[in-house]
Amino acid sequence: MPEEGRTQRRLAAIVAADVAGCSRLVSLDEEGTLAALRAHRVELIDPLLKKHGGRIANTAGDSLLLEFPSAVDAARCAIAVQEGMVARNDGIDPEKQIWFRVGIDVGDVVAEGEDMLGDGVNVAARLEGIAEPGGICASPK
Amino acid sequence: MPEEGRTQRRLAAIVAADVAGCSRLVSLDEEGTLAALRAHRVELIDPLLKKHGGRIANTAGDSLLLEFPSAVDAARCAIAVQEGMVARNDGIDPEKQIWFRVGIDVGDVVAEGEDMLGDGVNVAARLEGIAEPGGICASPK
Repeated sequence: MPEEGRTQRRLAAIVAADVAGCSRLVSLDEEGTLAALRAHRVELIDPLLKKHGGRIANTAGDSLLLEFPSAVDAARCAIAVQEGMVARNDGIDPEKQIWFRVGIDVGDVVAEGEDMLGDGVNVAARLEGIAEPGGICASPK
Repeated sequence: MPEEGRTQRRLAAIVAADVAGCSRLVSLDEEGTLAALRAHRVELIDPLLKKHGGRIANTAGDSLLLEFPSAVDAARCAIAVQEGMVARNDGIDPEKQIWFRVGIDVGDVVAEGEDMLGDGVNVAARLEGIAEPGGICASPK
């Protein structure tokens, strides 16, 4: 381990996710949207996080910030979530379908309690912003 | 943590180092070269590894494979080693100076006991091969 007194940095794969058009979905059906989001989280995302060794570092409204110790596991988890959402949106009114945009970056993070800071967090959030709904945008290695 | 039964991957900064022209140095002065290498290791490299949170994953002859949990710490340690070698080579016959070539990559590794496997290990070794003596070659982020 590094000597004490130094900033504790660690490499992490950082996954940022949010719901595309969340404000529109909430204005259309607030309770239904929030209930659906909770269900996606409990039935799809949380089990996949556990399976792939990830953890939730932070949440803010409809956005999730996830940390994985492995880049491969982060990518596998993100793909599984997006594939899972295809199945879960099947048969739902297209106006009410929930699609996540996902950004992935790898970089040093600095722990702030459960939360984390670092350039890679900002990059993941920016990549998420340019991902297609239902898609994943990852930084080139 | 990931579920059991899966390959345990982790992100790491991988540093590969070897001595430029080691065969020539050894043929010139075997005992002197090996004694100098041991001194560089004990007096310079090991303390810097401890300071920057790195560990020796493998050694083979004059080559070292190092692992760091942080990319920034890996780069800082590599720079400190190379700067330290400038000081330690000062006043030494240029024919007998020892210079490390260093390659750095970041990627998932799979633990094999103390040793580690992974694409990043191979990339770090290749980057080391094209580094200048006394220099560092790192993969672009």
